[in-house]
Amino acid sequence: MYPRMNLWTDMKNRDEIGIALLGFGNVGSGTYEVIEENFTSIKEKVGVKIYVKKILVRDLNAGRRVKAPAELLTCNPEDIFKDPSVDIVAELLGGLEPATEYMIRALDSGKHVVSANKAALAANLPQLLDAVERSGRVLRYEAAVCGAIPVMDVIDRALAANKISGISGIVNGTTNYILTRMGEEAADYASVLADAQRLGFAEADPSGDVEGFDAANKLSLLIWQAFGKYIHPDKIARKGITELGLADIDAAALRGNKIKLIAQADDGPEGVEASVAPREVPADSFLGRCAGEYNAVQLDCDMAGPIFLMGKGAGPRPTGSAVVGDIISIARDMRSGV
Amino acid sequence: MYPRMNLWTDMKNRDEIGIALLGFGNVGSGTYEVIEENFTSIKEKVGVKIYVKKILVRDLNAGRRVKAPAELLTCNPEDIFKDPSVDIVAELLGGLEPATEYMIRALDSGKHVVSANKAALAANLPQLLDAVERSGRVLRYEAAVCGAIPVMDVIDRALAANKISGISGIVNGTTNYILTRMGEEAADYASVLADAQRLGFAEADPSGDVEGFDAANKLSLLIWQAFGKYIHPDKIARKGITELGLADIDAAALRGNKIKLIAQADDGPEGVEASVAPREVPADSFLGRCAGEYNAVQLDCDMAGPIFLMGKGAGPRPTGSAVVGDIISIARDMRSGV
Repeated sequence: MYPRMNLWTDMKNRDEIGIALLGFGNVGSGTYEVIEENFTSIKEKVGVKIYVKKILVRDLNAGRRVKAPAELLTCNPEDIFKDPSVDIVAELLGGLEPATEYMIRALDSGKHVVSANKAALAANLPQLLDAVERSGRVLRYEAAVCGAIPVMDVIDRALAANKISGISGIVNGTTNYILTRMGEEAADYASVLADAQRLGFAEADPSGDVEGFDAANKLSLLIWQAFGKYIHPDKIARKGITELGLADIDAAALRGNKIKLIAQADDGPEGVEASVAPREVPADSFLGRCAGEYNAVQLDCDMAGPIFLMGKGAGPRPTGSAVVGDIISIARDMRSGV
Repeated sequence: MYPRMNLWTDMKNRDEIGIALLGFGNVGSGTYEVIEENFTSIKEKVGVKIYVKKILVRDLNAGRRVKAPAELLTCNPEDIFKDPSVDIVAELLGGLEPATEYMIRALDSGKHVVSANKAALAANLPQLLDAVERSGRVLRYEAAVCGAIPVMDVIDRALAANKISGISGIVNGTTNYILTRMGEEAADYASVLADAQRLGFAEADPSGDVEGFDAANKLSLLIWQAFGKYIHPDKIARKGITELGLADIDAAALRGNKIKLIAQADDGPEGVEASVAPREVPADSFLGRCAGEYNAVQLDCDMAGPIFLMGKGAGPRPTGSAVVGDIISIARDMRSGV
């Protein structure tokens, strides 16, 4: 669950919110585009003007996907932690460090934090929640799990009347893209991976995705959100897709099934059982129909029944949409003087 | 869009919230069950104790699906509007009147209102929003659209960074159940309808569902939520499923399609185009795969891309889950002293 917000006597009735971006790669630049391009519609809908005040980059002169005014860029994180015009820090760096240290420094500096960094969040959630508790600030991370799909907020708010007993999902777009193309084109793993790397759907070192580490990080965060229990991603049974061959996919197809990398967790009387592994699912089921770079999650709720969510699992703007959704959520509460 | 909450100087740091239910039929009793059965888990997750203080019924001695203590029942709505222990009124009556009058009376009496009543909301939204404005109270209605699916909250919050340009969905469970069974069993409309009525999936007078009135009401509310524009349901082009025969369903199947009652709206430069009508969709598409009493909605977002949501569209507990989700949402803001 997300930590609850404390009282903000210092921020009553604010209608301008200052943001700092840590990182200006794909997610950072996508977040910047969402804030800039939808500034007016966000202001009209939510009554809040969101301004990017600073952007932390490694190299001031690097080439970038998106242009931002040079005066926003800085290589010194202290410029951000000490800037009183920055209300919310969006940590979009990736990797465990310095991301975790920066999130904790931001919270301890009185900033709210939004993060898309599943690796740092899943590995270091207990320390991060300590910093939240200590600082009275808020930490949200919708963008860390399933890109644009609002699964974390839905669990936190709209389904709050439910006990959730099970989660199953396709939470990694790279592996889903590879498995989809292997099935559709009868192409082998190595050639599809090479093509995915060329097209930007897989990284140069694909192990985080294809070995299931990324999915385990996301499942750890989903387990915390849905069950209120923390399981370190290293403790989640994990098997990737690297050993899958075309023969496996063909054999599954003969049974009317597709092979998907499924992240799955059940909260039973014996505790939480969680795993990431390739599994056969019926080709015409909700998860079987989730193709390409899409992600999908099923939540088993005691009152609502099963709830199914699907959307783009990655990409600068879909992930930016989730980052800015969290920013708006915090800004709204700040604005109403919570 | 949902109206924003004002300041609640009179309700700071409350951890007990009093609810009144208007109506104790399927939705009212389902809401009661959700509150009673998940009292402890809601208290632990959200920090709020939700108590049902009063239930408005027509007949104190009627037989009921669910038992509630006799001292909670009343036939006099004034008992509820005047009760200072009631913070939130859940209007679960159905029908235009007295539901609309009661919602306005509740708001003007200083109560927040949650409603599952798509007919009253869609027809009378302008007057209801006037009462919200005048009273400074909140009106939420997740349960009015697509039962358990959290589509209204997702549009309002998690996707707030997006402009939504299109909505398409299966928003009526009764017609979807009938069309699904006609297709699966090669049974004709009249016999499936009769069976659906026997099983409680269709009402004795099915016209609200099968003529598309119910779907038009929900589409009107979705259009307001997503586009910020109000269109009276009578202004939405509407065609039901009563003229569909098995021959139509078979012909669609030969083209690889299914016929679904699709609610659709696009927000373009010429204004909003909206319709409810039976349409052919590919059998293996997201909407084509939504079967039985399930509902499904696709939201076309400028930043997030398409977002797909599916879940149970009706039933006491799924609808109760949405009602209580709204109650918790208001209770949270009250508790934090917004």
